[in-house]
Amino acid sequence: MATIGVDLGGTKTMAVLVEDRSVRAKAKKSTPLTGGPLDVIDTVVRAITKLDPDGRARAIGIGVPGPVIPGTGVLPAAPNLPGWDHDVPVGDLLSERLGGRPVVVDNDVNVGTLAEHRLGAGMGVDNMIGVFAGTGVGAGLILDGNLRQGPRGLAGEIGHTFVAFRDLRSDGHGRGELEDYAGRRSLERRARCMVDQGDETVLFELAGGGRLKSRIWAEAVEAGDTLTAKLVDDAASALASAIASAIVLIDLELVVLGGGMAERLGESFRQRVEEEIMERSFARATTPVLAARMGDTGGAVGAALLVEGFR
Amino acid sequence: MATIGVDLGGTKTMAVLVEDRSVRAKAKKSTPLTGGPLDVIDTVVRAITKLDPDGRARAIGIGVPGPVIPGTGVLPAAPNLPGWDHDVPVGDLLSERLGGRPVVVDNDVNVGTLAEHRLGAGMGVDNMIGVFAGTGVGAGLILDGNLRQGPRGLAGEIGHTFVAFRDLRSDGHGRGELEDYAGRRSLERRARCMVDQGDETVLFELAGGGRLKSRIWAEAVEAGDTLTAKLVDDAASALASAIASAIVLIDLELVVLGGGMAERLGESFRQRVEEEIMERSFARATTPVLAARMGDTGGAVGAALLVEGFR
Repeated sequence: MATIGVDLGGTKTMAVLVEDRSVRAKAKKSTPLTGGPLDVIDTVVRAITKLDPDGRARAIGIGVPGPVIPGTGVLPAAPNLPGWDHDVPVGDLLSERLGGRPVVVDNDVNVGTLAEHRLGAGMGVDNMIGVFAGTGVGAGLILDGNLRQGPRGLAGEIGHTFVAFRDLRSDGHGRGELEDYAGRRSLERRARCMVDQGDETVLFELAGGGRLKSRIWAEAVEAGDTLTAKLVDDAASALASAIASAIVLIDLELVVLGGGMAERLGESFRQRVEEEIMERSFARATTPVLAARMGDTGGAVGAALLVEGFR
Repeated sequence: MATIGVDLGGTKTMAVLVEDRSVRAKAKKSTPLTGGPLDVIDTVVRAITKLDPDGRARAIGIGVPGPVIPGTGVLPAAPNLPGWDHDVPVGDLLSERLGGRPVVVDNDVNVGTLAEHRLGAGMGVDNMIGVFAGTGVGAGLILDGNLRQGPRGLAGEIGHTFVAFRDLRSDGHGRGELEDYAGRRSLERRARCMVDQGDETVLFELAGGGRLKSRIWAEAVEAGDTLTAKLVDDAASALASAIASAIVLIDLELVVLGGGMAERLGESFRQRVEEEIMERSFARATTPVLAARMGDTGGAVGAALLVEGFR
């Protein structure tokens, strides 16, 4: 039984055709940067049609960049998609364009976590968190073997948990949320601010005037850049603090760490995060941190898993 | 069908006889402060026997001060019980003393949360957290209508979540866990340290050389004591930070706030915590904070709910 999974991201849209739990084909498109929701939907339809021109797939799962209103397929305002400033019924719009076939919509990080749980680093572990550190920081929760959505579809928003409470904020950046220390966007802002205050770094030179992509951060660490080392170490510590809190609050047995920044910073970063989590662990809870294994089709494969049982 | 619920605390043991979801009788004993686990078990049996001399109750639920190993009825080392420095099979020991009747054991804060969910401030809300601020700080989670224990029985340990990450620690007290700011035991230590450093307070005068019980803290707030106001405000802020993180991470619709300190500090404290949670809230998540309603039999009633369906 064939199904299709789509990972709709701010820059690219990835679709996979899955049969017998194997990826049979994939298609990639650039997500439009201008226009509105219908242009984005159109791109998704073109990726699907390219992959499966005869409409063999019985159902379509899609991961989208934001929390979905549970049971509705609606994605409210999404800052990373063009003109997406209101509730958009992604499920209904797509289904209409795809001959009325069922479409299930969930958060991109949720489906990424589902893929790691069912087919990747989290196989066989029923209580785990998938943490993805990229432009921002998000997570998905598997509790007793099931993906938790939460009544408002907000479960897993670890990037918005607080790692410093009011009186302890050390600077003017954000309100002490994890993302303020560990998201690529915030890290870039923070680096720029430090340079404005007279600090030195190779980061902006390496980027040649462009954005500080994950690759640039990894190169700057490699080059022994002091400012980068400090910011990356803070990011690891903030991640470890937030994840250790999640572990003790929810009782989790495994952490799967992925996302562009975590993947580029590699094994030493994973190890740094794991060590601090262990140090912060409580009672008999020992919780390893494994690198995500599903790579760049993880989100799309996870989205296909949303409709795995559909016939 | 009659059942019995027991709340085994570090200072008192409360037992209730429940029939048709109503408390028919209650019994209270002092928990022994010396001796060992068998003395504690003996006290529990005496409370139960006093309440139900003919053994009418079909099953017994008990809440204990520490995380229980799921499915076993075993309470490992519990610092608040005398000589309890190893795994003790509370369920088996009690069942043996009670004619082989079934005994279900869970964490005291979990059963307190269950009572609030089924019969108290959390009625009708399927995704909620019960936070109890007393000597320490603990919580219970109701997710999709069910009490979460977690694979290791550790779910809900909010007192050990981190509200400040490494670099932001402002003083030498603890490692930045919620309990370091909001637990009565830590607050007393913190107050004593501030006095040693030259600060002034009415706290120790009010306590007359005794421990700083919750009542003393409430009186010092009432008296306009500056040091107390600062520490209590920090406690509220730390609680709000940790609870706001839990809300956004798990997607919770309601907070029920109880425990000795929270109850004594009363409505103004609840309001202070709620306001900061609202201020820190993310997206469309608005989560009220209600005061716990079950009072001092809440734990015992919740324990009885563990065996509600037993026949």
